[in-house]
Amino acid sequence: MFPSFTIQSPSSSIEVELQQKIDTKTKPLGALGELENLAFQLGKIQNSLTPDVSKAKMIVFAADHGVVAQGISLFPQEVTPQMVMNFLMGGAAVSVFCDQHNVPLRVVDVGVNAKLDEHPLLGARKVAMASKDFSQEAAMTLEEAAQAIQAGVDEADLALDDGVNLLMFGEMGIGNTCVSSCMMAALVGMSAAQSTGRGTGLDSAGVSHKASIIEQSLKRAEQATGQSMADWSAQTLAEQVGGFEILAMAGAMLRSAERQTAFVVDGFICTVALLFAQKVAPNVRDFAVFAHQSNEQAHRSLLEHFDALPILSLNLRLGEGSGAILAYPLIQSACVFLNKMASFESAGVSDSK
Amino acid sequence: MFPSFTIQSPSSSIEVELQQKIDTKTKPLGALGELENLAFQLGKIQNSLTPDVSKAKMIVFAADHGVVAQGISLFPQEVTPQMVMNFLMGGAAVSVFCDQHNVPLRVVDVGVNAKLDEHPLLGARKVAMASKDFSQEAAMTLEEAAQAIQAGVDEADLALDDGVNLLMFGEMGIGNTCVSSCMMAALVGMSAAQSTGRGTGLDSAGVSHKASIIEQSLKRAEQATGQSMADWSAQTLAEQVGGFEILAMAGAMLRSAERQTAFVVDGFICTVALLFAQKVAPNVRDFAVFAHQSNEQAHRSLLEHFDALPILSLNLRLGEGSGAILAYPLIQSACVFLNKMASFESAGVSDSK
Repeated sequence: MFPSFTIQSPSSSIEVELQQKIDTKTKPLGALGELENLAFQLGKIQNSLTPDVSKAKMIVFAADHGVVAQGISLFPQEVTPQMVMNFLMGGAAVSVFCDQHNVPLRVVDVGVNAKLDEHPLLGARKVAMASKDFSQEAAMTLEEAAQAIQAGVDEADLALDDGVNLLMFGEMGIGNTCVSSCMMAALVGMSAAQSTGRGTGLDSAGVSHKASIIEQSLKRAEQATGQSMADWSAQTLAEQVGGFEILAMAGAMLRSAERQTAFVVDGFICTVALLFAQKVAPNVRDFAVFAHQSNEQAHRSLLEHFDALPILSLNLRLGEGSGAILAYPLIQSACVFLNKMASFESAGVSDSK
Repeated sequence: MFPSFTIQSPSSSIEVELQQKIDTKTKPLGALGELENLAFQLGKIQNSLTPDVSKAKMIVFAADHGVVAQGISLFPQEVTPQMVMNFLMGGAAVSVFCDQHNVPLRVVDVGVNAKLDEHPLLGARKVAMASKDFSQEAAMTLEEAAQAIQAGVDEADLALDDGVNLLMFGEMGIGNTCVSSCMMAALVGMSAAQSTGRGTGLDSAGVSHKASIIEQSLKRAEQATGQSMADWSAQTLAEQVGGFEILAMAGAMLRSAERQTAFVVDGFICTVALLFAQKVAPNVRDFAVFAHQSNEQAHRSLLEHFDALPILSLNLRLGEGSGAILAYPLIQSACVFLNKMASFESAGVSDSK
């Protein structure tokens, strides 16, 4: 019932040739810094000396969260469907940046607490009208968790069947920084205080309140399952403290990796989705391109966990996939230099002594 | 004889309206991080609520340096004209990235030690066949320094008369990291050891040698001028230890600022050009957009001097304007969000409590 994934790590057979191609471009050795590492990763994933990310797609998963009843967000829940409409009408940050880079945007409802009208850019895959308040009861049933993950799988398949060669994920859901902090605490065995940050702009009293709600939720879930959270399976974790859009992103990442396709990880919430995906299938990480270091404190330790050097560090804290789409031209640049720059030999330039 | 500049700082009259426009976009307050500061700066410079950087131009200034006779670079001097040809043929990093972003590239010879054939993308403004070896004698005459600065002024005028609304500068010149470290030491009163880095990839013995050459050059120049370098005028500094492409960049920056146009500062060498420009006219800094933090150690302290938060931090150390052009889509994004995102009111989205 719960989707399963078999992910083959990228082959290392191309590594030597790839590194040599990078090193003979007309530039000092290593002078393109992180772009060289990115080109190497993309070449390896695509098993190609000419990787191509020109056909990208942004998928924003949206859902609501029962735990907002505990007053853990600055914004009211009605903002989730309002922002979904804003995405569809082209007025949100992720919309205007996707438009700037000619990247198609799709919004997928996996649990928004409102009836949404049909729209050509909207994927209707609602699992429920919001998750339950996990400070009081399990966030969802196992069936719902499986359905959310499957929604992500199906969306990835839809894109990849269409020839997309780079997937980007974003999310919308009032309260989902709280859900992510809770999932992170359970996944890495960290205290709620360490995994909790300001979200859309809470003050320190708001952060403390959020951390205490998370702590209480994790205790409730440990009692309900009769297990320490360190012993939870991915299924149990999803059922107890998951969020629909986060599980859907994880499903899409896992499917993308299974189909040997790179995907871009946006900010904190998206990185928590990767953490969950990693619990399901560890080598999903090989296919992840980290877009940015956000302003959310727990994001930094999460990126360290993944040994990730994100492309951007602009103090963004917006989510929606906005960091991923902002990083996209640089991901393209990694391919552009590898595919188009002259070599010392082809340009007749003398190499270093 | 030496060009002079009168730079008006951007008017603050638009600040309140600009900040209000940024703050009412459909995102949590400040959630677009550094992009918001960038949008604010560009709006102020252009005195507009809808700043526009869509017509950008990259100008790469190239020259040679007599001091390479002291063995301070990994690459031989012949690489300067070879790389100029590579720029013109479209094979260099800056070429392929300019092509990626549809930004016209122009290469300006202000002192390359070779006769270059005419080319539609090449500006022929040669001041001399390389500067003199400043460890032994003055790098250039005062007339030559003035001519190099004027070359930059004329290039900026050419672009701005054509409607360019964002200038980007790059440089090519074997040995110019050494020249920049020397200029920086003199400009900020820093030891050569502190201002000297690995350049295109020197080992630590190479760095020490370079620092000792710089120290020796500064001593020679202090003796020749009979002044402590702290007392040098911009003219004297340029004459004694300048580089043609660095002075030309400074001239172009000063003219860009004089004409109230933002310009993008690339890496270490370009930032030293700004430092020199600042000595000529302090408020040139108001018009500078800092593209990236490079891997050159002295670049970090230089960016701190300017209180700059550069857009990228990718461990680049290539020069050529490559960091500037890589940052360009993000500079565009700053305008895109300001010009195209919906406001809470226009999108009917509820604001925070």
